[in-house]
Amino acid sequence: MPLPPVAGFRWSGVEAGIKKRGGLDLGLVVADSPASVAAIVTTNLVCAAPVVLAKRHAARGVAAAFLVNSGCANACTGDRGRETAWATTVACADALGVDPRRVLPASTGVIGAPLPAERLIAALPRAVEALRPDGAADFAAAIMTTDRGPKTAFAEVPLGRKRITIAGVAKGAGMIHPNMATTLAFVVTDARVGAPVLRRALRDAAADTFNAASVDGDTSTNDMIAIMASGAAGGPPVQSEKDAARFTSKLRDVLDHLARMIVADGEGSRHLVEIEVVDARSERDARLAAGAIATSPLVKTAFHGQDPNWGRIVAAAGRSGARFDPERCTLWVGDVVLLRRGTPTGPEPEQRAHEVMTRPDYRVRLSLGAGTARARHLACDLGADYVRCNADYRS
Amino acid sequence: MPLPPVAGFRWSGVEAGIKKRGGLDLGLVVADSPASVAAIVTTNLVCAAPVVLAKRHAARGVAAAFLVNSGCANACTGDRGRETAWATTVACADALGVDPRRVLPASTGVIGAPLPAERLIAALPRAVEALRPDGAADFAAAIMTTDRGPKTAFAEVPLGRKRITIAGVAKGAGMIHPNMATTLAFVVTDARVGAPVLRRALRDAAADTFNAASVDGDTSTNDMIAIMASGAAGGPPVQSEKDAARFTSKLRDVLDHLARMIVADGEGSRHLVEIEVVDARSERDARLAAGAIATSPLVKTAFHGQDPNWGRIVAAAGRSGARFDPERCTLWVGDVVLLRRGTPTGPEPEQRAHEVMTRPDYRVRLSLGAGTARARHLACDLGADYVRCNADYRS
Repeated sequence: MPLPPVAGFRWSGVEAGIKKRGGLDLGLVVADSPASVAAIVTTNLVCAAPVVLAKRHAARGVAAAFLVNSGCANACTGDRGRETAWATTVACADALGVDPRRVLPASTGVIGAPLPAERLIAALPRAVEALRPDGAADFAAAIMTTDRGPKTAFAEVPLGRKRITIAGVAKGAGMIHPNMATTLAFVVTDARVGAPVLRRALRDAAADTFNAASVDGDTSTNDMIAIMASGAAGGPPVQSEKDAARFTSKLRDVLDHLARMIVADGEGSRHLVEIEVVDARSERDARLAAGAIATSPLVKTAFHGQDPNWGRIVAAAGRSGARFDPERCTLWVGDVVLLRRGTPTGPEPEQRAHEVMTRPDYRVRLSLGAGTARARHLACDLGADYVRCNADYRS
Repeated sequence: MPLPPVAGFRWSGVEAGIKKRGGLDLGLVVADSPASVAAIVTTNLVCAAPVVLAKRHAARGVAAAFLVNSGCANACTGDRGRETAWATTVACADALGVDPRRVLPASTGVIGAPLPAERLIAALPRAVEALRPDGAADFAAAIMTTDRGPKTAFAEVPLGRKRITIAGVAKGAGMIHPNMATTLAFVVTDARVGAPVLRRALRDAAADTFNAASVDGDTSTNDMIAIMASGAAGGPPVQSEKDAARFTSKLRDVLDHLARMIVADGEGSRHLVEIEVVDARSERDARLAAGAIATSPLVKTAFHGQDPNWGRIVAAAGRSGARFDPERCTLWVGDVVLLRRGTPTGPEPEQRAHEVMTRPDYRVRLSLGAGTARARHLACDLGADYVRCNADYRS
């Protein structure tokens, strides 16, 4: 399904010759008038040059464009990398006639390799020329690296007397040869939202979606989620608690959809598993337990083998740092109870749980019996293909 | 090479019928007279019944025996598990004519399955009968689960006018179907060492050996390292700083040897990689970085593929929580510098690093350029066989 246009934005994707194998590799999203902007970037200390720029530019609250290339991450590239990130950002700003600080650059692809800035800059006029309201499909294709397919999501919501729309495009599929497969997500909305409200909405919407999704627990040097709001839908700005909550909730739906597509696209993965930890003593405890389960190689290989190995799940929670009494744990796979207050329910439920685990998409729920807090994490299984993809010598 | 006898101790290993496929599965180590004892047990909240007992008994400082079964972990087995752990401990104590609180039980094998206590108890007279000073090989075989072979280590050291010996036996090989492959290590020495000194020596010797070794980052419900000291070598007790340091250093050698054998035995693993992080701001930072590198699936698959993918190594350190400036990092694989103060050294060193990585055993060293602290971690590569071993449905 093509992404419907969002008032105030145009998209494009062109071939700049950055990807070795060819194909679309330069994507552009442009706001017709200055838009509010917010971004979340990787917390990895090893942070790519474009990410540093994008973070700084997003902090100003106003933006005109996202400039994204695939095929080269421009990470671990030192002074030269900083220069090319800035040069390409300036070239894009010039082509659009805006202040360079209103352009958020992003790169994804091989780490440590220099970005061929001249190719990117040479392709910019074509990218600007190609901009159109229904160009999201080209943009989505241009930012892909190891993805099996493009990832887009869309939501509409009535706010006051207006109907606003939110559209998102993402890429990412775990880590694969030869890339650090960066997670990138770009969202645009025609809602009128000031930067402070937009920042909070993005942070809240990412908390249990992008910030609770793992393919392999490794974070990239280039991860970023960014949103621009054009206000082209008209009406008063989103400001009241109620409007902000409704906007955040829809934004969360869009991010959830994109995050699920990314996790489901993990290399060699066949199952998307939603890990839900409930009845924890604190939200921190719930997150620790859910994260430990979602990233445990033992749990993930059991998911791959469709093996209801509840011992591994409980043991992962046990080493997570979350405080609980194992004798009070109850564990479900789908609707099947495998452990009830610390006691295994036996072989027949295990067989039914195994059947649940043959599905492409299911839920594992662990009650810690220690409080009322909860958290969730999106996980995928770990298969031999993941190893095959990641173990090849880069050559 | 068979393990030489250690004065004051006898070992045995017999078949009790606990392992489904048969073979030795009950091991016993007995001190001829009351020995000093110390133990370190899993920090996992989900802790097997025998571990709880062993920890409590070790805290008393005096012990007579280690009682170990393979084939069943007696973990997540509730009240019944606690009863069988206690019943088998009492039966062993009765057979030896000692206080049950002087027996440290340990179990390894399938999680969640009940321990067939009656079989274990029925085999005890044979296990006691079989005890002999040179019985360590049978003991080593009896505690194995998924290990490719027995794991033993031995050291001698002059202390004062005496020559003392330390012998260790371990099992463990990462996590494999259908077990949580527990790490167990049992060490005996004829040195005269009081329990407080023994405890400190064990903790210090484990810090950068057993507590810095990963196959897959998962910790078992049953992990334990325990040591008994008989004093049969004679001479004054190990008490001075100098003697304690010498004893600890030799104990560390024994544990290091055992830990290396365990990591090298990780399923599907072909390479033992020593990760050394130096010039860190604090020891905590060094440990965080070394641990993140050693457990990163991306780094481990690169080791498997003999791929000098330095970006993954530096990025793992970057997300570890250690504080450093990536521009000051220097990275070696073996003696080859791949990154010097943040700048890649190019394709020729990468090719030489690849050659280093074809060896079964090599070192990766990362200088953070942020201080003087250091830490190391033992890691292995992650191959498709690991997934194959761990993904099968338990049936």
